Amino acid sequence: MTRVGIIGATGYAGVELVRILHGHPHVTLSTITSRQYAGTAISAVFPSLTGVVDIQCEAFSPDETCERADVLFTALPHHVSMAIVPELVRRGRRVIDLSADFRFRNVNLYEAHYQPHSARELSEQAVYGLSEVFTEAIRSADLVGNPGCYPTSVLLPLIPLVSAGMLDPGSLIADAKSGVSGAGRSPALTSLYCEVAESFKAYKIGVHRHNPEMNEVLSAVAGRPLSITFVPHLVPLSRGMLTTIYASPCAPVTEEEIRDVLARYYEGRPFIRLRPTGGPPNTLHVRGTNYCDIGCKVDAGSGRIILISAIDNLVKGAAGQAVQNMNLMLGLPEDCGLNGVPFAL
Amino acid sequence: MTRVGIIGATGYAGVELVRILHGHPHVTLSTITSRQYAGTAISAVFPSLTGVVDIQCEAFSPDETCERADVLFTALPHHVSMAIVPELVRRGRRVIDLSADFRFRNVNLYEAHYQPHSARELSEQAVYGLSEVFTEAIRSADLVGNPGCYPTSVLLPLIPLVSAGMLDPGSLIADAKSGVSGAGRSPALTSLYCEVAESFKAYKIGVHRHNPEMNEVLSAVAGRPLSITFVPHLVPLSRGMLTTIYASPCAPVTEEEIRDVLARYYEGRPFIRLRPTGGPPNTLHVRGTNYCDIGCKVDAGSGRIILISAIDNLVKGAAGQAVQNMNLMLGLPEDCGLNGVPFAL
Amino acid sequence: MTRVGIIGATGYAGVELVRILHGHPHVTLSTITSRQYAGTAISAVFPSLTGVVDIQCEAFSPDETCERADVLFTALPHHVSMAIVPELVRRGRRVIDLSADFRFRNVNLYEAHYQPHSARELSEQAVYGLSEVFTEAIRSADLVGNPGCYPTSVLLPLIPLVSAGMLDPGSLIADAKSGVSGAGRSPALTSLYCEVAESFKAYKIGVHRHNPEMNEVLSAVAGRPLSITFVPHLVPLSRGMLTTIYASPCAPVTEEEIRDVLARYYEGRPFIRLRPTGGPPNTLHVRGTNYCDIGCKVDAGSGRIILISAIDNLVKGAAGQAVQNMNLMLGLPEDCGLNGVPFAL
Amino acid sequence: MTRVGIIGATGYAGVELVRILHGHPHVTLSTITSRQYAGTAISAVFPSLTGVVDIQCEAFSPDETCERADVLFTALPHHVSMAIVPELVRRGRRVIDLSADFRFRNVNLYEAHYQPHSARELSEQAVYGLSEVFTEAIRSADLVGNPGCYPTSVLLPLIPLVSAGMLDPGSLIADAKSGVSGAGRSPALTSLYCEVAESFKAYKIGVHRHNPEMNEVLSAVAGRPLSITFVPHLVPLSRGMLTTIYASPCAPVTEEEIRDVLARYYEGRPFIRLRPTGGPPNTLHVRGTNYCDIGCKVDAGSGRIILISAIDNLVKGAAGQAVQNMNLMLGLPEDCGLNGVPFAL
Repeated sequence: MTRVGIIGATGYAGVELVRILHGHPHVTLSTITSRQYAGTAISAVFPSLTGVVDIQCEAFSPDETCERADVLFTALPHHVSMAIVPELVRRGRRVIDLSADFRFRNVNLYEAHYQPHSARELSEQAVYGLSEVFTEAIRSADLVGNPGCYPTSVLLPLIPLVSAGMLDPGSLIADAKSGVSGAGRSPALTSLYCEVAESFKAYKIGVHRHNPEMNEVLSAVAGRPLSITFVPHLVPLSRGMLTTIYASPCAPVTEEEIRDVLARYYEGRPFIRLRPTGGPPNTLHVRGTNYCDIGCKVDAGSGRIILISAIDNLVKGAAGQAVQNMNLMLGLPEDCGLNGVPFAL
Repeated sequence: MTRVGIIGATGYAGVELVRILHGHPHVTLSTITSRQYAGTAISAVFPSLTGVVDIQCEAFSPDETCERADVLFTALPHHVSMAIVPELVRRGRRVIDLSADFRFRNVNLYEAHYQPHSARELSEQAVYGLSEVFTEAIRSADLVGNPGCYPTSVLLPLIPLVSAGMLDPGSLIADAKSGVSGAGRSPALTSLYCEVAESFKAYKIGVHRHNPEMNEVLSAVAGRPLSITFVPHLVPLSRGMLTTIYASPCAPVTEEEIRDVLARYYEGRPFIRLRPTGGPPNTLHVRGTNYCDIGCKVDAGSGRIILISAIDNLVKGAAGQAVQNMNLMLGLPEDCGLNGVPFAL
Repeated sequence: MTRVGIIGATGYAGVELVRILHGHPHVTLSTITSRQYAGTAISAVFPSLTGVVDIQCEAFSPDETCERADVLFTALPHHVSMAIVPELVRRGRRVIDLSADFRFRNVNLYEAHYQPHSARELSEQAVYGLSEVFTEAIRSADLVGNPGCYPTSVLLPLIPLVSAGMLDPGSLIADAKSGVSGAGRSPALTSLYCEVAESFKAYKIGVHRHNPEMNEVLSAVAGRPLSITFVPHLVPLSRGMLTTIYASPCAPVTEEEIRDVLARYYEGRPFIRLRPTGGPPNTLHVRGTNYCDIGCKVDAGSGRIILISAIDNLVKGAAGQAVQNMNLMLGLPEDCGLNGVPFAL
Repeated sequence: MTRVGIIGATGYAGVELVRILHGHPHVTLSTITSRQYAGTAISAVFPSLTGVVDIQCEAFSPDETCERADVLFTALPHHVSMAIVPELVRRGRRVIDLSADFRFRNVNLYEAHYQPHSARELSEQAVYGLSEVFTEAIRSADLVGNPGCYPTSVLLPLIPLVSAGMLDPGSLIADAKSGVSGAGRSPALTSLYCEVAESFKAYKIGVHRHNPEMNEVLSAVAGRPLSITFVPHLVPLSRGMLTTIYASPCAPVTEEEIRDVLARYYEGRPFIRLRPTGGPPNTLHVRGTNYCDIGCKVDAGSGRIILISAIDNLVKGAAGQAVQNMNLMLGLPEDCGLNGVPFAL
């Protein structure tokens, strides 16, 4: 049993980590920290866990926290992570960071869209934790920058086609829709029930910070600079993310050919499910799971390719993929602790 | 006071017509029909109307219904309308039909996507009721084919730019999201609360019947055949539709130029609201109103134009636009009976 | 045209006042104030109002605000009202206060449950604004303490039976359920979408501050001390409140007798709608309206009376009843500006 | 490994059984039947199960179905069960029936509220499957009538106090609130998204068929005829049930005394969680779990006891309790297969 810890366990991604890691057969959740709730039982913060997870939130301390766990998950706001993660790595801990701070290989790109980076070298050495794509690098990584939810939903359907050189690089568009938990558990006007119910809107059009993250990875895969038009939207869902991608093929393709490319790329990977024609992905089908359901269609009129992905933004888009990465790092089957039977509603 | 009637008053669009027409200062709602609820008070079907609208549903009869009203709204399923509308027109009534049956000038297109048409000539003579675009023709029309909700949301932002020849015709994509009331009030598995809550999905990808409707109008406006890629999605909202449109400009444009084209095209029209930069449209802002809020943005990376429209699918997307068309036909101000103060939530 | 002003116009009750008063045929909304949004157009805070309500929020100033309006609505937090209202009354303005500060005749009761009161005398002179019950006193009042949403929903069905002496005074129980807008527009963890969706809970069981408010009014009506057991619950609704009341009759009664008592008490009052047997109240039927729908039933097994009321917590439970009170104070028909046709969904 | 089957696997309770039983470590889900979907993979009906549960729905046949499974769950509409269950029992299968057909010992009571019973003797021999209360009888039962969701939520908090003789028998009131999945997966107007969203209502006031079920059990526990006033309400939730119970104590009690009685009664039972004072139950805390969270409070004014329970209507209110009963029947730990870590949202 590997001892694992969560730094920042009381946000929505943090408590998802608690849920998954507590039920994981090969690890022990040995420490969780929370600035706001230090000294409080996690089950007092999230009463659903009463009688199930009997562990108390602690204040973070580099020495003590590292002493208690071999692998650490950091589920902290951007900027906070970069101050803490180097201390963990220095103490020999393997780290999976859920913030944006270690997602970029080109730190200038990070700095252009976030803020000055105080651990540039470490960021350059970190591995981007898109589990199905950078699998081998993740296995041996000491520090994984866990992908953003939007990039996960955009990259998984696109990368097989981009890496096969099938797509017109200037044609890529991702129209993404996210549930509200993506905005986190901090009180904010725009996350209030009455502001979200009966509301559907786009936001940060063309300026969302997940856009450069996608671009960097797509460019690396394509072997040349590549940029995607990205529009995120907010949906009245607690959990779930559905992304509809439009791309022009370099040469006419059929739906079957696209499916073949995807099926071959993800062969043997348990969390990618290709939906049959006529049964497009639905956030409800992946709710609470680590699946990424993918559907595709060729628009008859234009020949344009339409790809659709559905994930749970808190699982495959955050905590689930983080645990999947831990499994890879520990040499465990990648679905270990992530294979509960899904709910139908 | 013009006497107006509603044929098919107990669906969601029908009862919206009841609401708007009962409150309209220049018409009298003199007859409403319903096959299912004939003999029942409308307030027994929709208790919100108790004490406000005291009118009883009747069975439809061409002679009696026409005797009671000068203008008729038909809110019936496709196929049913085409059997009834000719009888109304023959009796000299002016008709606004909310089904798809009289939306197409090219009836072959209708027949390719719906079914054989039993009133082809009448369909060719009908006027497409996109109020802000075909205003003059609507004023003198005897029969208006009221637009579908999706086409309304797609055409209003696009037509000014298409008619100005600013867009690459092969580049048009509409990613549309609709509330559940668009599926109507008939019990259906896919409209159940438990199937819709926490669910977001695309459906009828590339094969929705509103697609040829959009194409016919866009082609007429552009003066050449034009086809748009169209993907509809279902959102857990009762009311509301938001459409995100992607198009490549023929020559680089700025957001200000786009706004200017839109502002000039819709000058003086009360229901088109251009949103300021940084305040994109939101279905909650137009809920229960006849507004179409439009926002635009130029994607810095690609130069692509992003247009976003928000409407209430039951108002501007159905009953409200129908009344707006009636106002035009009767020489009334077009916002008559449609200018209630909007709710903030 | 009477000039009216709103002090605190950017909360949920405040913007409801804006909506109703802007559409009111006999008043002019001449000033609105907001501490947070002073200098900002109300339509920038609530974009639904764009193009409809073109008025700017101002900072509150006793002199200027009173100069601009003859009647003032104060929609402020408890405690803030008691500091401001006396200044308005002193300047000869008639005031309708939506906070709890002027709801209690027995100020000791207020102080026991809220805080020390700085305007005790004024509170003793204020009139409790339950429009259908204290009608005559409201007509001539200078200061109305507008009732809480829960007390409105509890008192309207109960008062006719209590004042007729029909109920066992120790038997009263109110199980109330409220939408989330009752918690206001300030960001709070418990009002976040993800905390409310798929959640239903009781809160402040037996200790809610609306309980003494109900008790004071019920006791006054009964002519002896009377206390009701009160449990509020939070429902995933934006708007709406449904209260189920249980009471034992002093002597066996039939449903018809109860309905008769209610019908006679509220004869001629436009906003009380008695629901027919088998068609119990529903928050959706009163959404956006000033109605209070009431249903009743006698439990066959126990003889217990069950009363159910439905209101929109922001309208009859706040802004709508406030305007109804203004109408009474100005000698207008009480439904003036409140008689829009309801939505069916 | 015991082989188990589900007759009627494609309703909401049926698919919950699929979920739980497929993940159960000591049983094999060897057959599932569905009239509507015979020949279809369960994962085609519920795509969330794709790649996880690879089993096909079959038509029900007494011989074949019994041949394939040792324990059978029947999740069928009332009336259908009574025709099928006797055939299963006759073939020596142990049966857990989720309909109302085998919940009543007094079959006359069933017939008074449902319909004529075609298997009266079998019904009299069946065991009422309230797991924590009739534990010993369930262990040896051949046929368990699984409780209704409402009775489960009412009986679990009440029985310890009733059996201790602490409550005034004429004082019992249960105000219950249920999510929409309780109405099943059959398309019905009242279960449509647009009819449920922003709606809260009572229904079947005093005439719901779960009322006599509660009464029979309460009377048996009390040792004398006992009747409870019961009002069910519909909440816009997919899953979840919260019941607020009011009762007068025979002699004054404190909250601590009530908690003690409950704690002693349920000592060692894993699925009853007593909530601390100030942290009342919430449906979100039990979503997807077999827990029944219980809170209590004594109303200071009246001395009345307030009990609140929260369950997931599809789990503890249906499929989960059914599996708990199976565990008891098979001599397994009662939480076997039911102890997944709960979600926080």
